[in-house]
Amino acid sequence: MEFARDQWYVGAFAHEVGREMLARTVLGEPIVLYRTGDGRPIGLADRCVHRRFPLSASRLDGDNVVCGYHGFTYDSGGTCVAVPGQQRIPRAAKVPGYPVVEQDSFVWVWIGEPELADPADIPRAPWLDDPAWTVVRGMAPLSARYDLLVDNLLDLSHETYLHGGYIGTPEVAATPTTTSVDEEAGVVRVSRRMSDVECPAFYARSTGIQGNIDRWQDIEYHAPCLYLLHSRIAPAGIVVEGDDSAASHAEIVYAITPSTATTTYDFWAVARDFARDDSSVSDFLADNQQAVVMQDVVALNLLETVIATEPEGYRELSIDIDTGGLAARRILKRLAAGPVRVPAAVQG
Amino acid sequence: MEFARDQWYVGAFAHEVGREMLARTVLGEPIVLYRTGDGRPIGLADRCVHRRFPLSASRLDGDNVVCGYHGFTYDSGGTCVAVPGQQRIPRAAKVPGYPVVEQDSFVWVWIGEPELADPADIPRAPWLDDPAWTVVRGMAPLSARYDLLVDNLLDLSHETYLHGGYIGTPEVAATPTTTSVDEEAGVVRVSRRMSDVECPAFYARSTGIQGNIDRWQDIEYHAPCLYLLHSRIAPAGIVVEGDDSAASHAEIVYAITPSTATTTYDFWAVARDFARDDSSVSDFLADNQQAVVMQDVVALNLLETVIATEPEGYRELSIDIDTGGLAARRILKRLAAGPVRVPAAVQG
Amino acid sequence: MEFARDQWYVGAFAHEVGREMLARTVLGEPIVLYRTGDGRPIGLADRCVHRRFPLSASRLDGDNVVCGYHGFTYDSGGTCVAVPGQQRIPRAAKVPGYPVVEQDSFVWVWIGEPELADPADIPRAPWLDDPAWTVVRGMAPLSARYDLLVDNLLDLSHETYLHGGYIGTPEVAATPTTTSVDEEAGVVRVSRRMSDVECPAFYARSTGIQGNIDRWQDIEYHAPCLYLLHSRIAPAGIVVEGDDSAASHAEIVYAITPSTATTTYDFWAVARDFARDDSSVSDFLADNQQAVVMQDVVALNLLETVIATEPEGYRELSIDIDTGGLAARRILKRLAAGPVRVPAAVQG
Repeated sequence: MEFARDQWYVGAFAHEVGREMLARTVLGEPIVLYRTGDGRPIGLADRCVHRRFPLSASRLDGDNVVCGYHGFTYDSGGTCVAVPGQQRIPRAAKVPGYPVVEQDSFVWVWIGEPELADPADIPRAPWLDDPAWTVVRGMAPLSARYDLLVDNLLDLSHETYLHGGYIGTPEVAATPTTTSVDEEAGVVRVSRRMSDVECPAFYARSTGIQGNIDRWQDIEYHAPCLYLLHSRIAPAGIVVEGDDSAASHAEIVYAITPSTATTTYDFWAVARDFARDDSSVSDFLADNQQAVVMQDVVALNLLETVIATEPEGYRELSIDIDTGGLAARRILKRLAAGPVRVPAAVQG
Repeated sequence: MEFARDQWYVGAFAHEVGREMLARTVLGEPIVLYRTGDGRPIGLADRCVHRRFPLSASRLDGDNVVCGYHGFTYDSGGTCVAVPGQQRIPRAAKVPGYPVVEQDSFVWVWIGEPELADPADIPRAPWLDDPAWTVVRGMAPLSARYDLLVDNLLDLSHETYLHGGYIGTPEVAATPTTTSVDEEAGVVRVSRRMSDVECPAFYARSTGIQGNIDRWQDIEYHAPCLYLLHSRIAPAGIVVEGDDSAASHAEIVYAITPSTATTTYDFWAVARDFARDDSSVSDFLADNQQAVVMQDVVALNLLETVIATEPEGYRELSIDIDTGGLAARRILKRLAAGPVRVPAAVQG
Repeated sequence: MEFARDQWYVGAFAHEVGREMLARTVLGEPIVLYRTGDGRPIGLADRCVHRRFPLSASRLDGDNVVCGYHGFTYDSGGTCVAVPGQQRIPRAAKVPGYPVVEQDSFVWVWIGEPELADPADIPRAPWLDDPAWTVVRGMAPLSARYDLLVDNLLDLSHETYLHGGYIGTPEVAATPTTTSVDEEAGVVRVSRRMSDVECPAFYARSTGIQGNIDRWQDIEYHAPCLYLLHSRIAPAGIVVEGDDSAASHAEIVYAITPSTATTTYDFWAVARDFARDDSSVSDFLADNQQAVVMQDVVALNLLETVIATEPEGYRELSIDIDTGGLAARRILKRLAAGPVRVPAAVQG
């Protein structure tokens, strides 16, 4: 799979980026992330121009990066300001910088032509940085290709089989979904509305609801990186149409970032508007979401080994549940191909 | 090496196949083995038709296999009988089944065109499932190519050097062998008859014989998978020609199954007609045969690393002891090439 | 990188070669080293002619090597003198031998055409086998390509950043070097003379010198394998020009041997003419030099992973400190290309 360039991807959670050097590889590009003394996140190519030593194995001197091998020193813009053994600094001594934006508790990195980077294009996940919501979060590295995780998240019928005992119940797989696609915006929406169904342990223990529930799963995938699952849980039958105030809400957010061709960063967060000050609920949700993510990691890593050994031209079989995932693949393929160049004659 | 298709291979010992899913890869084909409630062994392609999830990571619902990812459900013939979220089941939703036969304590799997599978073609190792014999058995996976194990077993002169202290004595390597080949049946026989020779620890301690022995090693290799070593041990000089009743016999059986191009299953069993009810002899033979097999595993895994790094066109040097092994290679090459198609003009 | 053939390389320290078989891979060639009963070092191709079993996994019978698989037996010249099961020995049964010379505590092996091997061409490191010097030594295997280690050693400005606290001080990187190259002899000399500078812990604790020092680092690299660092340390200002008797000297020797395309043997030794009978100084220098070598190993192994994933055509940027390393690369490239063949017409 070719990945979509000229796009924003999550490189790290904001709390991961500080005064220690953090190495991440995004779409195969090695990047070092750190913060200046006044708190600005910085992204630089993770290679010294001299002998390619990773700057992530270097140290900070103020806001400057001092290479750990021979001491080539760069300012936060990537310009070399000192080299060993001589005063003259070669003009070519510059490491490329990456446009970086901190928003909604993520550090977003632009992969592509820097001059095309527009922070206004970054999709939002406002709950993650909103005091009205309580959030747990984590990151799992996958030894599996990016599109396996996109597939996984766009079709939640797998909750019943892979995540039974956590968030899966028989009704999830049994209930059909509706899918809508905004090709232009690159957004896929998959909705599953369940009435009077079993409440999974994940929500029963965190909300305290007893008995059956009405459960909504409204997926909103902003290709290529941001996946939102608007989850609504309420005791069966109590919510009046158009008034959601009696329901509990969880905003489950995944940022899906290709690292290499066959490895992926799976950033996850669960924001809730219930039991907001109860730290035991936070601990429970963090532990359980982590367990669910690891079930996915194990399954997708296994699928990666399957793909690695299977013959060319292997064909999958798709059914209705795959409508959202297939739409996502189509959009990702279009984004990877790059912008449509309209021929001059057509432009008139 | 190309492997011979349209052949029966041992996929598992019968006792390994039950109500838990067992994954095996035979000639590069991923296969899941299990038993129906009434005890029938089943072999299916180990891939869900939907998103290629291994069915070996699934669970049984009665005799049906329920995929552990999205719940696609197959009967024991591989036909899909349920999918999530919809009633209609696509007609293409079928996983290929493998002809499977349980015989002589092995589960044999047919690799090739199913319509060509004839259970009558499976070579026999009747001692392994005969109450008149006592059997110990095990399986060792090799990180080495199949033909290294065929080579190893067809030339037992290596016992002297690799298995000294267990089954090797100086006389094994020193004694010439006689080889006969049935090209049509694909059977190679290598015979080594030793008179008045040292008894190796393997037989001295299990038979209780003291002093020198007459020792026969009669190999019978049924290409591609079944290797029989008819081993006869008797105190030197006591056996009358044509009457074997005073001798002890061990039937040492190997089923040699290519897994991938560079990995192999080494199924082994030792059946004996002496000390049959003595469990300490069973334990001794199981431990010692396991030790001998592991000496082979270590040596062949080492040879595999040698081959992986050696230049193209490396040449071996063969001598008399290799006659059986070279015959086996020739038969395997012919079987791998497939049946001879006689041109119509010649048939004419 | 192509390596230079028809050259002497260090295969082992003399003390590593004895009556046990030692396996080394030099320029991709598997070699077994051992000593005859009268102490002569022997080098043979590490492959039995029969089924390629490594002779390093064999055993000695007197001065003969008995293959551990089927017992093919070779004398110390590589000629086969016994095979199993028959009296006749095939004439082709010979493993190639390697010219081997023991000198200066190293076992040198000739890689190339044996008839071109001239022991007089081996560069010297006499301190390592001279009772007037006290020596500590060791070997570190690198998972990194040979030229990364050549680069590393030819430019010691990295001591300041990678080996701070051991042998690096700020003045090393800050002080310019002078380089001279003898293209014909294949020798590169890089010299750094520092006056009245900080004494690094490595020398302060071993010499007992307090306060600043005059420090000389005179590199002499004999391509492709031998690297000498003539290190001179003396209290600042006390040494009279032309009389070195008041100074302490360390001869730091590296033998750099390519094993495979991406692995390297790093043989190191430190000989000193001070505190010669103080075993605590020996222990200190052995520990510290080992620590310094491991810092290089970690850095170079990391660089190897960088190179493995970087795009084709990646360009480095070189400055004055790289003059010696670039000269070494140039010489190694010429040696790898082989001798210049002068056309007959030109010779005429």
